[in-house]
Amino acid sequence: EEVVAAIRSMVIRGAPAIGAAGAYGLAMGIGQLKDRDMAEVERLKGVLEGARPTAYDLQHGLEYVFQQAQEAGSWEAKQSAARAAAESYAERSIEACRQIGLIGSELIHEGDGVLTHCNTGALATVDYGTALSVIRMAHEAGKDIFVYVDETRPRLQGAKLTAWELQQEGIPYAVIADNAAGYYMQRGDVDVVITGADRIARNGDAANKIGPYAKAVLAKENDIPFYIAAPRSTIDLSCPSGDDIPIEERDEEEVLSIAGRRIAPAGSRAKNPAFDVTPAKYIKGIITEVGILKPEDIQSIELRDG
Amino acid sequence: EEVVAAIRSMVIRGAPAIGAAGAYGLAMGIGQLKDRDMAEVERLKGVLEGARPTAYDLQHGLEYVFQQAQEAGSWEAKQSAARAAAESYAERSIEACRQIGLIGSELIHEGDGVLTHCNTGALATVDYGTALSVIRMAHEAGKDIFVYVDETRPRLQGAKLTAWELQQEGIPYAVIADNAAGYYMQRGDVDVVITGADRIARNGDAANKIGPYAKAVLAKENDIPFYIAAPRSTIDLSCPSGDDIPIEERDEEEVLSIAGRRIAPAGSRAKNPAFDVTPAKYIKGIITEVGILKPEDIQSIELRDG
Repeated sequence: EEVVAAIRSMVIRGAPAIGAAGAYGLAMGIGQLKDRDMAEVERLKGVLEGARPTAYDLQHGLEYVFQQAQEAGSWEAKQSAARAAAESYAERSIEACRQIGLIGSELIHEGDGVLTHCNTGALATVDYGTALSVIRMAHEAGKDIFVYVDETRPRLQGAKLTAWELQQEGIPYAVIADNAAGYYMQRGDVDVVITGADRIARNGDAANKIGPYAKAVLAKENDIPFYIAAPRSTIDLSCPSGDDIPIEERDEEEVLSIAGRRIAPAGSRAKNPAFDVTPAKYIKGIITEVGILKPEDIQSIELRDG
Repeated sequence: EEVVAAIRSMVIRGAPAIGAAGAYGLAMGIGQLKDRDMAEVERLKGVLEGARPTAYDLQHGLEYVFQQAQEAGSWEAKQSAARAAAESYAERSIEACRQIGLIGSELIHEGDGVLTHCNTGALATVDYGTALSVIRMAHEAGKDIFVYVDETRPRLQGAKLTAWELQQEGIPYAVIADNAAGYYMQRGDVDVVITGADRIARNGDAANKIGPYAKAVLAKENDIPFYIAAPRSTIDLSCPSGDDIPIEERDEEEVLSIAGRRIAPAGSRAKNPAFDVTPAKYIKGIITEVGILKPEDIQSIELRDG
């Protein structure tokens, strides 16, 4: 239940980190359950899944741990299989993000302006990050780049987390109001847009923390390539299109207050969709640990190796 | 100097209100000047003009008062001509906004979702407002509408001011993160977008508080009409296109802090362009007090009657 609360309140956030946290949460649950009963484990899996309905990595991590436990024999074997599965899930996630960085960094050129959204770095993943892994590897390769960081209202992950990570790495950047992304694209200052994703459907539509749909449309209008960086565990082959991805609506107080301070007058109303879906047609490529996929190629590729 | 400070710090904001404040500021200045010298008045006019370089109404209001004073004979006559000019400027501004509301309200239909940006109501103008005048008149005509209010980072004029005005009028609305506007357009919940403007060039390009360019591109992509509501005093016939409109860059602290509270880590950097330009091709019409103009019609119409 602590893991559920941490995911729901966004103490743990970022799709890959949520996947690993869910995997460990389920393994811990199996370790502690009084009823030595797989039906009880399945119930726990459902509770964990419900913590963040949009992030597919969570389902993926939970499914992997659950299956490994189910296939094991005795209850003790199930417990140790679940723990081993969670560990191997997290390790594979780290390696996937490192590969994403290496592969994606080829898309960033000397002198490029790079726009990114939300936080997709070490604070959102188990280690390297997704879009931020790409940016970090381009910087480490000695490319002189400048990063435009959407502040990412309402939760301000860009201003709070991405700015901090870039600062630590010594990568030149500026936080901008989400409203200003179009301005810098229109001026020609942005050469490439790279974001993460919370779930990618079989047709290539990608759900992400609210905002990237607008950036993708603006990128297309300004002839700027828009990439998603995400491990294969974010791709949900059972989900036909973006229309089938559940969009979490969060508390309107996240919009009406900032950092605990009320910004709107008393009695104001807000709407707070936490995610949007970027249709595949706006996505130039999906940077995964096995290469850069075109959205239309996802359905024809066998993506899972367990 | 108090008027300059009030405009610069955005205590007085909204293009029509700034125009009227500038007109009164110059008239007050003429009333108090020790050197009874029009060269000194011209210097004061320059100082007031510099307070907000993007808003054209300011130049327009100042020019009108200055000319009336210049044409008068004695210094006392100049003083009273300036005061009368400021009063008539403000009165004409009120009447223009009322007309804009009446004319524009025809564009809003029963059941419409209306997206607006920044604050364009009574708090930004001398009275009725521009885009909010249109929304108010549609509501007063008994149309059942719902208003999506961009919170309008970095200064949050939507969340702070527009929400308050709509609440006072009993018009149903929700504040949304600027990131969520695309989501509601994509879902088909927004039927029309209406914003104000700070300066409209002769070719129909419109400068506005940072953000509307993105909304206009999204509106086009989703086949939603995008209108600007602005009095003729916002149209700058001497300005050929949006490229010639100066864009004010404001302090990066406006992005890094909200309501006096720091949101980004210490040492973070930001960029803060205060305005963007929406090219004419995205604008379906400009709602003025003399009718709804197509952007391409501006240059062929004699807009000024003094």
